Amino acid sequence: MFETLFQKFEEKIQLSDAEKELIKSFFQPKKLRKRQYLLQEGDVSKYVAFVEKGMLRSYTINEKGNEHIIQFAFEGWWINDMYSFITGEPSTYNIDALEDCELLLLSQQAEEKLFERVPKMERFFRMLLQNHMIATQRRLVSSLSRTAEEKYNELVESCPTIPQRVPQHMMASFLGITPETLSRIRGKKATTKG
Amino acid sequence: MFETLFQKFEEKIQLSDAEKELIKSFFQPKKLRKRQYLLQEGDVSKYVAFVEKGMLRSYTINEKGNEHIIQFAFEGWWINDMYSFITGEPSTYNIDALEDCELLLLSQQAEEKLFERVPKMERFFRMLLQNHMIATQRRLVSSLSRTAEEKYNELVESCPTIPQRVPQHMMASFLGITPETLSRIRGKKATTKG
Repeated sequence: MFETLFQKFEEKIQLSDAEKELIKSFFQPKKLRKRQYLLQEGDVSKYVAFVEKGMLRSYTINEKGNEHIIQFAFEGWWINDMYSFITGEPSTYNIDALEDCELLLLSQQAEEKLFERVPKMERFFRMLLQNHMIATQRRLVSSLSRTAEEKYNELVESCPTIPQRVPQHMMASFLGITPETLSRIRGKKATTKG
Repeated sequence: MFETLFQKFEEKIQLSDAEKELIKSFFQPKKLRKRQYLLQEGDVSKYVAFVEKGMLRSYTINEKGNEHIIQFAFEGWWINDMYSFITGEPSTYNIDALEDCELLLLSQQAEEKLFERVPKMERFFRMLLQNHMIATQRRLVSSLSRTAEEKYNELVESCPTIPQRVPQHMMASFLGITPETLSRIRGKKATTKG
Protein backbone atom coordinates (compact mmCIF):
# COMPACT_ATOMS: atom_id res chain seq x y z
CA MET A 1 0.00 0.00 0.00
CA PHE A 2 2.85 2.46 0.75
CA GLU A 3 5.17 1.59 -2.18
CA THR A 4 4.46 4.61 -4.36
CA LEU A 5 4.39 7.00 -1.40
CA PHE A 6 7.89 6.05 -0.23
CA GLN A 7 9.20 6.01 -3.77
CA LYS A 8 8.05 9.64 -4.06
CA PHE A 9 9.51 10.61 -0.67
CA GLU A 10 12.85 9.06 -1.53
CA GLU A 11 13.13 11.03 -4.77
CA LYS A 12 13.63 14.10 -2.53
CA ILE A 13 14.69 13.02 0.98
CA GLN A 14 16.42 10.05 2.66
CA LEU A 15 14.48 8.07 5.26
CA SER A 16 15.58 5.40 7.74
CA ASP A 17 13.42 2.27 8.28
CA ALA A 18 12.42 3.61 11.69
CA GLU A 19 11.34 6.90 10.13
CA LYS A 20 9.34 5.05 7.50
CA GLU A 21 7.46 3.07 10.16
CA LEU A 22 6.74 6.28 12.04
CA ILE A 23 5.55 8.05 8.89
CA LYS A 24 3.18 5.20 8.00
CA SER A 25 1.42 5.64 11.34
CA PHE A 26 0.27 9.15 10.35
CA PHE A 27 -1.53 8.06 7.16
CA GLN A 28 -4.97 6.45 6.92
CA PRO A 29 -5.54 4.07 3.99
CA LYS A 30 -8.83 4.57 2.16
CA LYS A 31 -10.39 2.88 -0.85
CA LEU A 32 -12.81 4.68 -3.15
CA ARG A 33 -14.84 3.08 -5.91
CA LYS A 34 -15.24 4.85 -9.23
CA ARG A 35 -17.69 7.80 -8.92
CA GLN A 36 -17.40 7.99 -5.10
CA TYR A 37 -16.50 11.35 -3.60
CA LEU A 38 -13.43 12.22 -1.54
CA LEU A 39 -14.81 15.74 -1.00
CA GLN A 40 -18.13 17.39 -1.79
CA GLU A 41 -18.73 21.11 -2.18
CA GLY A 42 -19.77 22.62 1.16
CA ASP A 43 -17.76 20.11 3.23
CA VAL A 44 -14.36 20.88 4.79
CA SER A 45 -11.31 19.37 3.07
CA LYS A 46 -9.95 17.51 6.10
CA TYR A 47 -7.27 15.46 4.35
CA VAL A 48 -4.61 15.70 1.73
CA ALA A 49 -4.85 12.47 -0.26
CA PHE A 50 -1.94 10.63 -1.87
CA VAL A 51 -2.93 8.40 -4.80
CA GLU A 52 -1.37 4.92 -4.53
CA LYS A 53 -3.64 3.52 -7.27
CA GLY A 54 -6.33 4.93 -9.55
CA MET A 55 -7.22 8.47 -10.46
CA LEU A 56 -9.31 11.39 -9.22
CA ARG A 57 -10.27 14.86 -10.33
CA SER A 58 -11.15 18.10 -8.53
CA TYR A 59 -13.72 20.42 -10.09
CA THR A 60 -16.06 23.32 -9.45
CA ILE A 61 -19.59 23.83 -10.74
CA ASN A 62 -20.51 27.41 -11.60
CA GLU A 63 -23.90 29.15 -11.29
CA LYS A 64 -24.90 27.94 -14.76
CA GLY A 65 -24.19 24.31 -13.79
CA ASN A 66 -21.00 24.00 -15.87
CA GLU A 67 -18.19 21.84 -14.51
CA HIS A 68 -14.62 23.19 -14.57
CA ILE A 69 -11.91 20.66 -13.86
CA ILE A 70 -9.08 22.05 -11.76
CA GLN A 71 -6.83 19.03 -11.45
CA PHE A 72 -6.48 15.37 -12.35
CA ALA A 73 -4.53 13.27 -9.81
CA PHE A 74 -2.92 10.04 -11.00
CA GLU A 75 -0.79 7.48 -9.09
CA GLY A 76 1.93 9.30 -7.14
CA TRP A 77 0.06 12.63 -7.02
CA TRP A 78 -1.55 14.52 -4.13
CA ILE A 79 -4.98 16.11 -4.10
CA ASN A 80 -7.14 18.23 -1.76
CA ASP A 81 -8.67 21.71 -1.60
CA MET A 82 -5.74 23.48 -0.01
CA TYR A 83 -7.70 26.61 0.93
CA SER A 84 -10.35 24.62 2.80
CA PHE A 85 -7.69 22.32 4.33
CA ILE A 86 -5.74 25.26 5.79
CA THR A 87 -8.60 27.53 6.85
CA GLY A 88 -11.26 24.97 7.83
CA GLU A 89 -13.74 26.87 5.60
CA PRO A 90 -16.24 24.82 3.52
CA SER A 91 -14.84 23.84 0.15
CA THR A 92 -16.07 25.15 -3.20
CA TYR A 93 -14.55 22.08 -4.90
CA ASN A 94 -15.68 18.52 -5.51
CA ILE A 95 -13.17 15.68 -5.66
CA ASP A 96 -14.33 12.33 -7.04
CA ALA A 97 -12.77 9.07 -8.23
CA LEU A 98 -12.60 8.51 -12.01
CA GLU A 99 -11.29 4.97 -11.40
CA ASP A 100 -11.28 2.64 -8.36
CA CYS A 101 -8.72 4.21 -6.02
CA GLU A 102 -6.37 3.30 -3.18
CA LEU A 103 -5.54 6.45 -1.24
CA LEU A 104 -3.42 7.40 1.76
CA LEU A 105 -4.97 10.25 3.75
CA LEU A 106 -3.11 12.73 5.94
CA SER A 107 -5.21 14.99 8.18
CA GLN A 108 -4.04 18.48 9.13
CA GLN A 109 -3.42 17.41 12.75
CA ALA A 110 -1.44 14.39 11.53
CA GLU A 111 0.55 16.63 9.16
CA GLU A 112 1.49 18.98 12.02
CA LYS A 113 2.63 16.05 14.18
CA LEU A 114 4.48 14.49 11.28
CA PHE A 115 6.51 17.71 10.76
CA GLU A 116 7.30 17.80 14.50
CA ARG A 117 8.44 14.18 14.62
CA VAL A 118 10.17 14.02 11.21
CA PRO A 119 11.23 17.60 10.37
CA LYS A 120 12.61 16.66 6.94
CA MET A 121 9.03 15.92 5.88
CA GLU A 122 8.45 19.67 6.06
CA ARG A 123 11.20 19.98 3.44
CA PHE A 124 9.53 17.33 1.30
CA PHE A 125 6.20 19.17 1.38
CA ARG A 126 7.88 22.50 0.62
CA MET A 127 9.52 20.97 -2.45
CA LEU A 128 6.28 19.27 -3.47
CA LEU A 129 4.48 22.62 -3.26
CA GLN A 130 7.19 24.23 -5.38
CA ASN A 131 6.65 21.65 -8.12
CA HIS A 132 2.89 21.93 -7.88
CA MET A 133 3.23 25.72 -8.06
CA ILE A 134 5.39 25.52 -11.18
CA ALA A 135 2.89 23.19 -12.88
CA THR A 136 -0.10 25.40 -11.98
CA GLN A 137 1.70 28.55 -13.14
CA ARG A 138 2.55 26.88 -16.46
CA ARG A 139 -1.03 25.88 -16.93
CA LEU A 140 -2.10 29.46 -16.21
CA VAL A 141 0.38 30.81 -18.77
CA SER A 142 -0.92 28.25 -21.28
CA SER A 143 -4.51 29.22 -20.60
CA LEU A 144 -3.62 32.88 -21.28
CA SER A 145 -1.33 32.49 -24.24
CA ARG A 146 -1.84 29.18 -26.06
CA THR A 147 -4.28 28.06 -28.72
CA ALA A 148 -6.62 25.13 -27.97
CA GLU A 149 -4.42 22.82 -30.05
CA GLU A 150 -1.21 23.89 -28.27
CA LYS A 151 -2.89 23.37 -24.89
CA TYR A 152 -4.02 19.88 -25.89
CA ASN A 153 -0.53 18.97 -27.12
CA GLU A 154 1.06 20.21 -23.87
CA LEU A 155 -1.37 18.14 -21.82
CA VAL A 156 -0.70 14.94 -23.76
CA GLU A 157 3.06 15.52 -23.66
CA SER A 158 3.03 15.97 -19.88
CA CYS A 159 0.73 12.98 -19.39
CA PRO A 160 0.74 10.61 -22.40
CA THR A 161 -1.84 8.14 -21.02
CA ILE A 162 -4.46 10.82 -20.42
CA PRO A 163 -6.43 10.29 -23.67
CA GLN A 164 -6.88 6.61 -22.73
CA ARG A 165 -7.83 7.27 -19.10
CA VAL A 166 -9.92 10.44 -19.17
CA PRO A 167 -13.21 10.92 -21.09
CA GLN A 168 -12.92 13.49 -23.85
CA HIS A 169 -15.44 15.94 -22.34
CA MET A 170 -13.38 16.04 -19.12
CA MET A 171 -10.18 16.80 -21.00
CA ALA A 172 -12.04 19.63 -22.72
CA SER A 173 -13.25 20.95 -19.35
CA PHE A 174 -9.70 20.81 -17.97
CA LEU A 175 -8.39 22.73 -20.99
CA GLY A 176 -11.20 25.29 -20.91
CA ILE A 177 -12.30 24.47 -24.48
CA THR A 178 -15.51 22.99 -25.91
CA PRO A 179 -15.78 19.21 -26.52
CA GLU A 180 -16.37 20.04 -30.22
CA THR A 181 -13.06 21.92 -30.46
CA LEU A 182 -11.24 19.04 -28.78
CA SER A 183 -12.88 16.55 -31.12
CA ARG A 184 -11.76 18.60 -34.15
CA ILE A 185 -8.15 18.76 -32.83
CA ARG A 186 -8.06 15.00 -32.22
CA GLY A 187 -9.60 14.27 -35.62
CA LYS A 188 -6.96 16.43 -37.30
CA LYS A 189 -4.14 14.64 -35.45
CA ALA A 190 -5.53 11.20 -36.39
CA THR A 191 -5.66 12.25 -40.07
CA THR A 192 -2.11 13.65 -39.97
CA LYS A 193 -0.76 10.44 -38.47
CA GLY A 194 -2.68 8.16 -40.85
CA MET B 1 14.80 48.29 4.77
CA PHE B 2 13.68 45.06 6.52
CA GLU B 3 10.44 46.34 8.12
CA THR B 4 7.95 44.75 5.75
CA LEU B 5 9.93 41.50 5.53
CA PHE B 6 9.88 40.91 9.28
CA GLN B 7 6.28 41.99 9.52
CA LYS B 8 5.44 39.22 7.00
CA PHE B 9 7.61 36.64 8.79
CA GLU B 10 5.97 37.42 12.12
CA GLU B 11 2.48 36.88 10.75
CA LYS B 12 3.42 33.18 10.56
CA ILE B 13 6.40 32.45 12.84
CA GLN B 14 8.02 33.93 15.95
CA LEU B 15 11.62 35.18 15.72
CA SER B 16 14.10 36.26 18.40
CA ASP B 17 16.28 39.37 17.87
CA ALA B 18 19.30 37.11 17.36
CA GLU B 19 17.44 35.13 14.69
CA LYS B 20 16.40 38.36 12.96
CA GLU B 21 20.01 39.56 12.79
CA LEU B 22 21.07 36.20 11.38
CA ILE B 23 18.24 36.20 8.81
CA LYS B 24 19.17 39.70 7.63
CA SER B 25 22.66 38.48 6.77
CA PHE B 26 21.27 36.12 4.10
CA PHE B 27 19.46 38.83 2.13
CA GLN B 28 21.01 41.27 -0.35
CA PRO B 29 19.32 44.68 -0.66
CA LYS B 30 18.83 45.86 -4.25
CA LYS B 31 17.26 48.97 -5.75
CA LEU B 32 15.65 48.96 -9.19
CA ARG B 33 14.46 52.02 -11.06
CA LYS B 34 11.18 51.87 -12.97
CA ARG B 35 11.58 49.84 -16.21
CA GLN B 36 14.79 48.08 -15.03
CA TYR B 37 14.83 44.28 -15.16
CA LEU B 38 15.23 41.89 -12.26
CA LEU B 39 15.28 38.97 -14.73
CA GLN B 40 15.41 38.74 -18.51
CA GLU B 41 14.26 35.79 -20.61
CA GLY B 42 17.21 33.44 -21.24
CA ASP B 43 18.94 34.27 -17.93
CA VAL B 44 18.79 32.04 -14.86
CA SER B 45 16.51 33.21 -12.02
CA LYS B 46 19.17 33.28 -9.28
CA TYR B 47 17.16 35.02 -6.58
CA VAL B 48 13.77 35.11 -5.03
CA ALA B 49 12.98 38.80 -4.49
CA PHE B 50 10.97 40.25 -1.62
CA VAL B 51 9.36 43.61 -2.39
CA GLU B 52 9.96 46.13 0.43
CA LYS B 53 8.83 49.07 -1.73
CA GLY B 54 7.47 49.47 -5.24
CA MET B 55 6.01 46.98 -7.66
CA LEU B 56 7.11 44.50 -10.33
CA ARG B 57 5.54 42.16 -12.83
CA SER B 58 6.58 38.85 -14.40
CA TYR B 59 5.56 38.15 -17.99
CA THR B 60 6.23 35.98 -21.04
CA ILE B 61 6.32 37.04 -24.68
CA ASN B 62 4.94 34.47 -27.13
CA GLU B 63 6.03 33.79 -30.72
CA LYS B 64 3.68 36.47 -32.04
CA GLY B 65 5.26 39.08 -29.74
CA ASN B 66 2.29 39.27 -27.35
CA GLU B 67 3.00 39.86 -23.66
CA HIS B 68 1.20 37.72 -21.07
CA ILE B 69 1.47 38.92 -17.49
CA ILE B 70 1.85 36.09 -15.00
CA GLN B 71 2.09 38.00 -11.74
CA PHE B 72 2.17 41.46 -10.22
CA ALA B 73 4.24 41.78 -7.02
CA PHE B 74 3.45 44.64 -4.64
CA GLU B 75 5.01 45.53 -1.24
CA GLY B 76 5.18 42.41 0.94
CA TRP B 77 5.09 39.96 -2.00
CA TRP B 78 7.74 37.62 -3.39
CA ILE B 79 8.65 37.15 -7.03
CA ASN B 80 10.96 34.97 -9.16
CA ASP B 81 10.73 32.27 -11.82
CA MET B 82 10.51 29.27 -9.55
CA TYR B 83 11.25 26.71 -12.25
CA SER B 84 14.46 28.43 -13.30
CA PHE B 85 15.41 29.12 -9.65
CA ILE B 86 15.12 25.44 -8.72
CA THR B 87 16.54 23.82 -11.84
CA GLY B 88 19.15 26.41 -12.93
CA GLU B 89 17.60 26.31 -16.45
CA PRO B 90 17.30 29.60 -18.39
CA SER B 91 14.07 31.42 -17.65
CA THR B 92 11.24 31.93 -20.14
CA TYR B 93 9.98 34.86 -18.03
CA ASN B 94 10.87 38.53 -17.77
CA ILE B 95 10.55 40.39 -14.48
CA ASP B 96 10.70 44.21 -14.55
CA ALA B 97 9.96 47.09 -12.21
CA LEU B 98 6.72 49.02 -12.81
CA GLU B 99 7.73 51.52 -10.12
CA ASP B 100 11.04 52.38 -8.39
CA CYS B 101 11.69 49.36 -6.14
CA GLU B 102 13.54 48.40 -2.98
CA LEU B 103 14.06 44.65 -2.96
CA LEU B 104 15.61 42.03 -0.69
CA LEU B 105 17.18 39.19 -2.66
CA LEU B 106 17.70 35.63 -1.42
CA SER B 107 19.87 33.34 -3.57
CA GLN B 108 19.28 29.60 -3.66
CA GLN B 109 22.52 28.94 -1.75
CA ALA B 110 21.52 31.52 0.86
CA GLU B 111 18.06 29.96 1.11
CA GLU B 112 19.56 26.50 1.75
CA LYS B 113 21.84 27.92 4.48
CA LEU B 114 19.00 29.91 5.98
CA PHE B 115 16.89 26.74 6.35
CA GLU B 116 19.82 24.97 8.00
CA ARG B 117 20.52 27.76 10.47
CA VAL B 118 16.88 28.79 11.16
CA PRO B 119 14.73 25.69 10.47
CA LYS B 120 11.45 27.48 11.13
CA MET B 121 12.11 29.54 7.99
CA GLU B 122 11.44 26.35 6.05
CA ARG B 123 8.00 26.34 7.67
CA PHE B 124 7.49 29.97 6.68
CA PHE B 125 8.34 29.24 3.04
CA ARG B 126 6.10 26.15 3.00
CA MET B 127 3.18 28.25 4.26
CA LEU B 128 4.00 31.03 1.79
CA LEU B 129 3.95 28.51 -1.05
CA GLN B 130 0.59 27.18 0.14
CA ASN B 131 -0.90 30.67 -0.03
CA HIS B 132 0.69 31.36 -3.40
CA MET B 133 -0.64 28.03 -4.64
CA ILE B 134 -4.19 28.83 -3.47
CA ALA B 135 -4.07 32.23 -5.22
CA THR B 136 -2.74 30.74 -8.47
CA GLN B 137 -5.31 27.95 -8.43
CA ARG B 138 -8.12 30.48 -7.91
CA ARG B 139 -6.85 32.54 -10.78
CA LEU B 140 -6.79 29.41 -12.94
CA VAL B 141 -10.39 28.55 -11.97
CA SER B 142 -11.37 32.16 -12.79
CA SER B 143 -9.65 32.01 -16.14
CA LEU B 144 -11.60 28.83 -16.96
CA SER B 145 -15.00 29.71 -15.59
CA ARG B 146 -15.49 33.47 -15.19
CA THR B 147 -16.59 36.17 -17.61
CA ALA B 148 -14.22 39.08 -18.30
CA GLU B 149 -16.26 41.33 -16.00
CA GLU B 150 -16.23 38.81 -13.13
CA LYS B 151 -12.45 38.40 -13.51
CA TYR B 152 -11.93 42.16 -13.39
CA ASN B 153 -14.13 42.49 -10.28
CA GLU B 154 -12.21 39.68 -8.52
CA LEU B 155 -8.89 41.35 -9.31
CA VAL B 156 -9.99 44.76 -7.97
CA GLU B 157 -11.50 43.17 -4.86
CA SER B 158 -8.30 41.29 -4.08
CA CYS B 159 -6.14 44.35 -4.78
CA PRO B 160 -8.16 47.62 -4.64
CA THR B 161 -5.25 49.94 -5.56
CA ILE B 162 -4.46 48.06 -8.78
CA PRO B 163 -6.42 50.35 -11.16
CA GLN B 164 -4.40 53.35 -9.86
CA ARG B 165 -1.02 51.60 -10.00
CA VAL B 166 -1.15 49.42 -13.10
CA PRO B 167 -1.72 50.67 -16.68
CA GLN B 168 -4.97 49.41 -18.16
CA HIS B 169 -3.33 47.37 -20.95
CA MET B 170 -1.31 45.44 -18.34
CA MET B 171 -4.41 44.64 -16.31
CA ALA B 172 -6.00 43.35 -19.53
CA SER B 173 -2.91 41.21 -20.23
CA PHE B 174 -3.04 39.79 -16.68
CA LEU B 175 -6.73 38.94 -17.08
CA GLY B 176 -6.28 37.43 -20.55
CA ILE B 177 -8.76 39.86 -22.13
CA THR B 178 -8.36 42.61 -24.74
CA PRO B 179 -7.77 46.22 -23.64
CA GLU B 180 -11.01 47.14 -25.48
CA THR B 181 -13.03 44.66 -23.37
CA LEU B 182 -11.47 46.02 -20.18
CA SER B 183 -12.21 49.57 -21.27
CA ARG B 184 -15.86 48.66 -21.89
CA ILE B 185 -16.14 47.02 -18.43
CA ARG B 186 -14.62 50.05 -16.69
CA GLY B 187 -16.80 52.46 -18.66
CA LYS B 188 -19.89 50.51 -17.63
CA LYS B 189 -18.85 50.54 -13.95
CA ALA B 190 -18.21 54.31 -14.05
CA THR B 191 -21.68 54.89 -15.53
CA THR B 192 -23.32 52.63 -12.93
CA LYS B 193 -21.62 54.46 -10.06
CA GLY B 194 -22.34 57.95 -11.46
